[in-house]
Amino acid sequence: MAPKLYGNVFSTATLRAVATFHEKCVEFEFVPINFGTGEHKKEPFLSLNPFGQVPAYVDGDLKLFESRAITKHIAFEHQGKGTELLYLDLKKMAPVAVWMEVEAHQYDPVASKLVFEQAVKPLMLKMEPDSAVVEEHQKKLGQVLDVYEARLSKSKYLGGDEFTLADLHHLPTLQYLKGTSTIEVFEARPHVSAWVKDILARPSWIKAVELQKQA
Amino acid sequence: MAPKLYGNVFSTATLRAVATFHEKCVEFEFVPINFGTGEHKKEPFLSLNPFGQVPAYVDGDLKLFESRAITKHIAFEHQGKGTELLYLDLKKMAPVAVWMEVEAHQYDPVASKLVFEQAVKPLMLKMEPDSAVVEEHQKKLGQVLDVYEARLSKSKYLGGDEFTLADLHHLPTLQYLKGTSTIEVFEARPHVSAWVKDILARPSWIKAVELQKQA
Ligand SMILES: N[C@@H](CCC(=O)N[C@@H](CS)C(=O)NCC(=O)O)C(=O)O
Ligand SMILES: N[C@@H](CCC(=O)N[C@@H](CS)C(=O)NCC(=O)O)C(=O)O
Repeated sequence: MAPKLYGNVFSTATLRAVATFHEKCVEFEFVPINFGTGEHKKEPFLSLNPFGQVPAYVDGDLKLFESRAITKHIAFEHQGKGTELLYLDLKKMAPVAVWMEVEAHQYDPVASKLVFEQAVKPLMLKMEPDSAVVEEHQKKLGQVLDVYEARLSKSKYLGGDEFTLADLHHLPTLQYLKGTSTIEVFEARPHVSAWVKDILARPSWIKAVELQKQA
Repeated sequence: MAPKLYGNVFSTATLRAVATFHEKCVEFEFVPINFGTGEHKKEPFLSLNPFGQVPAYVDGDLKLFESRAITKHIAFEHQGKGTELLYLDLKKMAPVAVWMEVEAHQYDPVASKLVFEQAVKPLMLKMEPDSAVVEEHQKKLGQVLDVYEARLSKSKYLGGDEFTLADLHHLPTLQYLKGTSTIEVFEARPHVSAWVKDILARPSWIKAVELQKQA
């Protein structure tokens, strides 16, 4: 039986896992979780993720949550199939591991805040973005992306010359930010800009975003 | 030659890497980085970590930064030596990976804020903690620790029956918080309280904290 992914098609964390399935050419069953009725804050979902957040993953008796634990598991379980998103070789894996942590600790806290202000608030909550928060976080993002620009002037992707999970984990926030003024912070940096265009155009990602059309 | 760890003995991220070396019984050379003179924001350190933060790790031509990338690398490089902090077996590794992500995304943002308010501000910056921020984050921490309590009532450690990196990554923030009122949030939950006592008493951790005495 195919593994099940419980999630919401507008959730960045969910789409991170969906894109990974597509990169690995692994079939899965998508189970939509209804935020409107608070399905994620009740049983039976809380038994899949006690923090009440999507996504959650079930394969037989294996239950996982936290999007980045799910993507790593899928990548290692299907070594040799689809794109090689992670490496078993420790030396090759080391820069990928570093840049996965950079995404999680340097990039995501800033990018997620901007997604919330500039996409979630106007599109889903019918609220105005707080322009002072946006400005502060765009400045912080610029500092992070200065480091990315230097890195991407030396290697095509963050973890090396090949696309890996270190790149993929950025896709859902990039997708939301590309419709906002924050995209200019990326576009002001030529290597970052080329990398954003390249990874957003991957067939796996286009297929992941298509899930939203069915919603 | 032994790997080098560049860091600051009062830095939580640095001590995460130090404890991992001790658990794996791996010799290393500690290179102190002087925050007072801004050594971490200048070359040559910026070539080791372009974000200007400690720790950084150098072993021959391999350079790593981000504490959790360093700990994972040490654990996998020294499989079979010292404590088995991570597993090659995917099924055994899955819960460890989940709870490492929980530490990074659910626990650490809240705990680090409390460390800043209740330890860094009074001890290092000679500033008063902001009591509203403390209260708000203690409440959030309580919600996270409710999930930990349920987990630790079923398995001795977060990743299963053995101590792993999923537990170790919490040690530096626990060390600072145990001298503050926030320790009560841990102590109010019996399984969490027993886990905190157990892991803070590990010889690897006691040895890691001893580095501070030489500073
Ligand atoms: N660190 C988690 C974050 C998951 C997360 O924040 N999910 C959001 C959707 S993107 C959610 O479920 N939000 C509902 C809530 O927190 O109540 C992961 O990567 O899986
Ligand atoms: N996510 C990073 C965080 C590193 C970090 O915040 N280091 C602090 C000390 S604990 C630091 O270097 N602070 C100085 C600064 O940011 O200017 C890691 O885990 O290595």
